[in-house]
Amino acid sequence: KNGRVELSHGSGGRAMAQLINDIFHAAFDNDWLRSNNDQASLDALPGRLVMTTDGYVVSPLFFPGGDIGSLSVHGTINDIAMGGATPKYLSASFIIEEGFPFADLERIAQSMGEASRAAGVPIVTGDTKVVERGKADGVFISTAGVGVLPEEISLSSDKARPGDAVLVSGSMGDHGVAIMSRRENLQFDVEILSDSAPLHGLVADMIAAAGGSLRVMRDPTRGGLAAALNEIALQSDVGFAIEEALIPVKPQVAAACEFLGLDPLYVANEGKLVAICEAQAAETLLAAMRAHPLGKNASMIGHVVEDENNFVEMKTGFGGGRIVDWLSGEQLPRIC
Amino acid sequence: KNGRVELSHGSGGRAMAQLINDIFHAAFDNDWLRSNNDQASLDALPGRLVMTTDGYVVSPLFFPGGDIGSLSVHGTINDIAMGGATPKYLSASFIIEEGFPFADLERIAQSMGEASRAAGVPIVTGDTKVVERGKADGVFISTAGVGVLPEEISLSSDKARPGDAVLVSGSMGDHGVAIMSRRENLQFDVEILSDSAPLHGLVADMIAAAGGSLRVMRDPTRGGLAAALNEIALQSDVGFAIEEALIPVKPQVAAACEFLGLDPLYVANEGKLVAICEAQAAETLLAAMRAHPLGKNASMIGHVVEDENNFVEMKTGFGGGRIVDWLSGEQLPRIC
Ligand SMILES: Nc1ncnc2c1ncn2[C@@H]1O[C@H](COP(=O)(O)OP(=O)(O)OP(=O)(O)O)[C@@H](O)[C@H]1O
Ligand SMILES: Nc1ncnc2c1ncn2[C@@H]1O[C@H](COP(=O)(O)OP(=O)(O)OP(=O)(O)O)[C@@H](O)[C@H]1O
Ligand SMILES: [Mg+2]
Ligand SMILES: [Mg+2]
Ligand SMILES: [Mg+2]
Ligand SMILES: [Mg+2]
Ligand SMILES: [Mg+2]
Ligand SMILES: [Mg+2]
Repeated sequence: KNGRVELSHGSGGRAMAQLINDIFHAAFDNDWLRSNNDQASLDALPGRLVMTTDGYVVSPLFFPGGDIGSLSVHGTINDIAMGGATPKYLSASFIIEEGFPFADLERIAQSMGEASRAAGVPIVTGDTKVVERGKADGVFISTAGVGVLPEEISLSSDKARPGDAVLVSGSMGDHGVAIMSRRENLQFDVEILSDSAPLHGLVADMIAAAGGSLRVMRDPTRGGLAAALNEIALQSDVGFAIEEALIPVKPQVAAACEFLGLDPLYVANEGKLVAICEAQAAETLLAAMRAHPLGKNASMIGHVVEDENNFVEMKTGFGGGRIVDWLSGEQLPRIC
Repeated sequence: KNGRVELSHGSGGRAMAQLINDIFHAAFDNDWLRSNNDQASLDALPGRLVMTTDGYVVSPLFFPGGDIGSLSVHGTINDIAMGGATPKYLSASFIIEEGFPFADLERIAQSMGEASRAAGVPIVTGDTKVVERGKADGVFISTAGVGVLPEEISLSSDKARPGDAVLVSGSMGDHGVAIMSRRENLQFDVEILSDSAPLHGLVADMIAAAGGSLRVMRDPTRGGLAAALNEIALQSDVGFAIEEALIPVKPQVAAACEFLGLDPLYVANEGKLVAICEAQAAETLLAAMRAHPLGKNASMIGHVVEDENNFVEMKTGFGGGRIVDWLSGEQLPRIC
């Protein structure tokens, strides 16, 4: 338990089998894994499927409010939920740098197992590779997920229509600012925690309240709200008119952004969603969101408009306006 | 096209969208990807599902007979096929080192796209992360796969029974030796190519011939035939009695192994399978395997035996015998 991962832990021999058993299977703990086959054998899923994958390379691996393990579970669950689907199964592929401490690997695996159990979405299959010292950075995790779609749901990023309402489930920028603060070793009066959380419960409540009126959902991860809205604008061939004053940003996050030279609209979130819905359902959806712990600060921030330039226009505090363009130039690498 | 991947290509902005579109979507080319959602929306799959994942960290990225792209498609298809399932959909997560040449990335993506089309298994969703120079090694790919199981099939690594026959689909050691030769810059009279290939077609033919009599299938990847048999022995609580003379090994691979100090039984394969079946079906299955291009050198190499030690015992050339233990000590890192 005080040891470190060696190259032999990735070579297919007894050391690898032991590492997988002692750390991963112990942490993820389910019968699919215990069967030890080349693949997990699952029940049939009644309905259309969705599939998604994300790689996680966040640095540092442990940060206020989470770690790479829980993040890799939440992120993939969220991408499934954004399609309106119910997440069912996860896979996890680990790429580990030689010399990585067992204790850290175990902590990450435990956190992943807890996140998976809390969300009710098991990690049913995995893989473990080890690369030489200096050929990776601690540990990278790629998770994939499969979910099942209720018959009546059909969300897609090309479905936003002029007049639709734009909702966000809570404050913007928490995750990215938590990471950056830790990287820059900043201390604040109020600690800024990552918002990393699984959104499928919130989404289920939204669908129960007014699922048929939902057009698009996105989790504003890398590139933040700005990237999410610009992508939808392009894919739906519309524009957005949003209001800065309506976008929730925590005061401590706004202050940290100011200090770090960041714009909260471009900063990653890992437990928030943007929803585009028919205007007349906006109040019903907002109420459903606010009744859920992960949506209590939900807000309507604007509307979809016709715009052949596909611009995201924002009314700012002083009666002015600006175009919220794609991120360019500035970069926040390894935020997730 | 002469450029290199920069950190901005992983930051969620326009550069990333362009990279994904120009290189990945162009190479994988299907409507699931073009829809550009956070997840791929798929048809329902009638039957039990299987799910699997593998990370690929092979070094070098391009090797005789394949590259990391085609390998990452074949390996994941094979793990699905080893469950007797039909592979349906793949996901692909890329972790790219800053400075990696676009030209190489494009070559890898093209090779992946071709492998996926040739196998009839589309890559429906993906992810792209970029890490700083020196924090990865060119490119790592994690693929996950989903397949569907025919009703009558139930293979599992705990189902081998004393008396069962052990079949291999062809020569052992080609992939690992191809990689090691390239790494050591060895030249041989007959070039040694990786056997990297998708096995689901061969498996479908085997199932059609005598599916009900199949007990276990494994692709002998990391750790080679030795690891595969030892794992099955442990999980089924049996032993194996195999014969060295019956195990196909190409003369040039045997020679290279001799030179490199490797044992072909421990060397990775990426286009071969081991099947355990009821003894009376062995001839039928062998005939079906030999009728398929990827099984033409198939061979029955021995039997399952009762053994409370779960040993793999091998009769050697000179009437002697030895125990084929798990790999330990020696290591072949980054072979896949
Ligand atoms: N990090 C992990 N977490 C959970 N399960 C894992 C992990 N790594 C491997 N496993 C499980 O351990 C078993 C053996 O995995 P392994 O990767 O050796 O199989 P394989 O994919 O057939 O071989 P290879 O990776 O060499 O192609 C599988 O059941 C796999 O799901
Ligand atoms: N390497 C790739 N190959 C194929 N498709 C890809 C690749 N990388 C991304 N994609 C596709 O591009 C789209 C956008 O991916 P992106 O990763 O930005 O979405 P996301 O997962 O919701 O965001 P994030 O990764 O920040 O959480 C998705 O449809 C995804 O499937
Ligand atoms: Mg396998
Ligand atoms: Mg995502
Ligand atoms: Mg594996
Ligand atoms: Mg997303
Ligand atoms: Mg495998
Ligand atoms: Mg992604």
